[in-house]
Amino acid sequence: MTRAGAGMAADIDEQPAGYARLLSTANAAEIARVAAIIAERRPRHVVFTARGTSDHAALYGAYLTEIRLGLPAGLASPSAVTLFGARPDLSDALVVGVSQSGGSPDLAEVLRAARASGALTLAVTNAPDSPLAEVAELSVDIAAGHERAVAATKTYTAELLALLMLVEGIRAGDGVLPAAEREALDALPELAARTLADDTPARLAPRYRFARQLVTTGRGYAYPTAREAALKLMETSYLPALAFSGADLLHGPLAMTDPEVPVLAVVGSGPGGRSMGEVLPRLGERRADVVVVGSAEVPGATRLAVPEVDERYAPLLDILPLQRLALALALTRGEDPDAPRGLKKVTATM
Amino acid sequence: MTRAGAGMAADIDEQPAGYARLLSTANAAEIARVAAIIAERRPRHVVFTARGTSDHAALYGAYLTEIRLGLPAGLASPSAVTLFGARPDLSDALVVGVSQSGGSPDLAEVLRAARASGALTLAVTNAPDSPLAEVAELSVDIAAGHERAVAATKTYTAELLALLMLVEGIRAGDGVLPAAEREALDALPELAARTLADDTPARLAPRYRFARQLVTTGRGYAYPTAREAALKLMETSYLPALAFSGADLLHGPLAMTDPEVPVLAVVGSGPGGRSMGEVLPRLGERRADVVVVGSAEVPGATRLAVPEVDERYAPLLDILPLQRLALALALTRGEDPDAPRGLKKVTATM
Repeated sequence: MTRAGAGMAADIDEQPAGYARLLSTANAAEIARVAAIIAERRPRHVVFTARGTSDHAALYGAYLTEIRLGLPAGLASPSAVTLFGARPDLSDALVVGVSQSGGSPDLAEVLRAARASGALTLAVTNAPDSPLAEVAELSVDIAAGHERAVAATKTYTAELLALLMLVEGIRAGDGVLPAAEREALDALPELAARTLADDTPARLAPRYRFARQLVTTGRGYAYPTAREAALKLMETSYLPALAFSGADLLHGPLAMTDPEVPVLAVVGSGPGGRSMGEVLPRLGERRADVVVVGSAEVPGATRLAVPEVDERYAPLLDILPLQRLALALALTRGEDPDAPRGLKKVTATM
Repeated sequence: MTRAGAGMAADIDEQPAGYARLLSTANAAEIARVAAIIAERRPRHVVFTARGTSDHAALYGAYLTEIRLGLPAGLASPSAVTLFGARPDLSDALVVGVSQSGGSPDLAEVLRAARASGALTLAVTNAPDSPLAEVAELSVDIAAGHERAVAATKTYTAELLALLMLVEGIRAGDGVLPAAEREALDALPELAARTLADDTPARLAPRYRFARQLVTTGRGYAYPTAREAALKLMETSYLPALAFSGADLLHGPLAMTDPEVPVLAVVGSGPGGRSMGEVLPRLGERRADVVVVGSAEVPGATRLAVPEVDERYAPLLDILPLQRLALALALTRGEDPDAPRGLKKVTATM
């Protein structure tokens, strides 16, 4: 009998080493090879398909694709293909399935149908022998190693980093990252270790011991972080956590916030973070209890501080204190985050 | 001083007449004209952009596009364009902005950038003189009339119907709906009136008087309904409501459900509804309190019953009892759904 949460804690702590491993010569070379093939095939748009935690990595991939590659990107609903028999013409598309297990039949079905319709297909998984990787023309191994906990942590960030390396490799054309990009990426393991060394999440967790719900919010690159933090809190602490883009929050759900609703606002130091400048005062008017996550200095705010990086890299750091918060909160509430009630590691849906 | 909720009640009740108006000769002819232009221009994929309630109509539009037109469809994140300066090449795309007010600057900016990059652009709004309609090459007026309440109801369903008529018109090629399609659509006003005549939502509302949160779920065409129902409950009753696709629910959030978490499951009579057959038993294992919304007969379930139609049309009916539930619940909880705290009718974000 191991200590409750020991598995999730170990998974979380492995992330700096995971970043370093994925950036190592062999793994980076393999991602560069795949990126060069994609660049040569010149897809006109990119469609991501994923479920759960991986859906948030896919959302990050979609932002990167639009902003860094200038290609339209979207997330496909597997059910249109698997339930309603949709067979969209994807001959101009790169279709990317993201899944830690690679075992979900619906994603494999979407990639099979896409490949049959002429799409270039890519699987991003932690299981290079999985059905998803086998059905796709191209495959990237996120090399995160065995994940102990049911709640995904290190596989999520490995998916983020693999997608970032891929997109920047496609942008370079030949898959080889420019020196400045490579340097920024090589700094991430150390920055991640420094972020995880900060003990604030464990000290903050008791604040939410009796919270009945929670709201997370962020814009741009920070929105996937807000979504993933909400899911992690739901999975491990059974706390209903609602994630909104900062803009969508103002379109309705703001009415729900009051001093009883804690808000975790992911605020970076770039355009996405600055745009939260219109959201935070509105939350203040509603007297919401706001904690700011990220590198932005927000006067007077309680913070989960993260080292400053370009917002493009921030999702690889900002999620770390939030994972630790989810773990600490679950333990504070007497739950074992390694074995969430009612969940399985591989979820098979069609 | 009018009665609390009188505006929202009137908006809801006008929906059958709104369907009939949009289906009338003049409005249908205008939509057919726009559909024919789109069909002739042969876009290779469709990108939707929207916020809040209209985002759920856009999601329905994306399902229709993939399933009925065989074209890839996705929802764009306005922030990639408005905050990060992304200028994706959209020369093969139809870009559709959906907004009741047409007044949100970020959507107008996305359509302006898309048009500059060569996209065919379309605005679907309730305000044909709005900035969004002016910036788009094509425009469809959903003709829903003035909406009294801040929470959108009749403009949502008018957006759904306009998108349905458009997609079926594009599918037909010349914009003119096939007789069978036209017949199915012409039945909707009467079916909507029959749905609204059922008083079950008002009788069900007290069940949630002391609920602390709520989960909505559905798959395929029913997923936008689940999302919109959750938003309506949040806007008017300040009840944290989490919407999940049935598949995503099994990927983590299921852990959050227990007998204290009411679930509204939208279950139709087609492939989407049948696929919920793997979700409902899992909710049963967790002893969740499930109410089934839609036309499916689920033995032993408490139901908000809706007349049976092809699942493609079901979103136009299934949302009606859920709007009435949101209204009745807000009143039961002593709130005025016509004037939600902290909200404005037109939300200006960039």
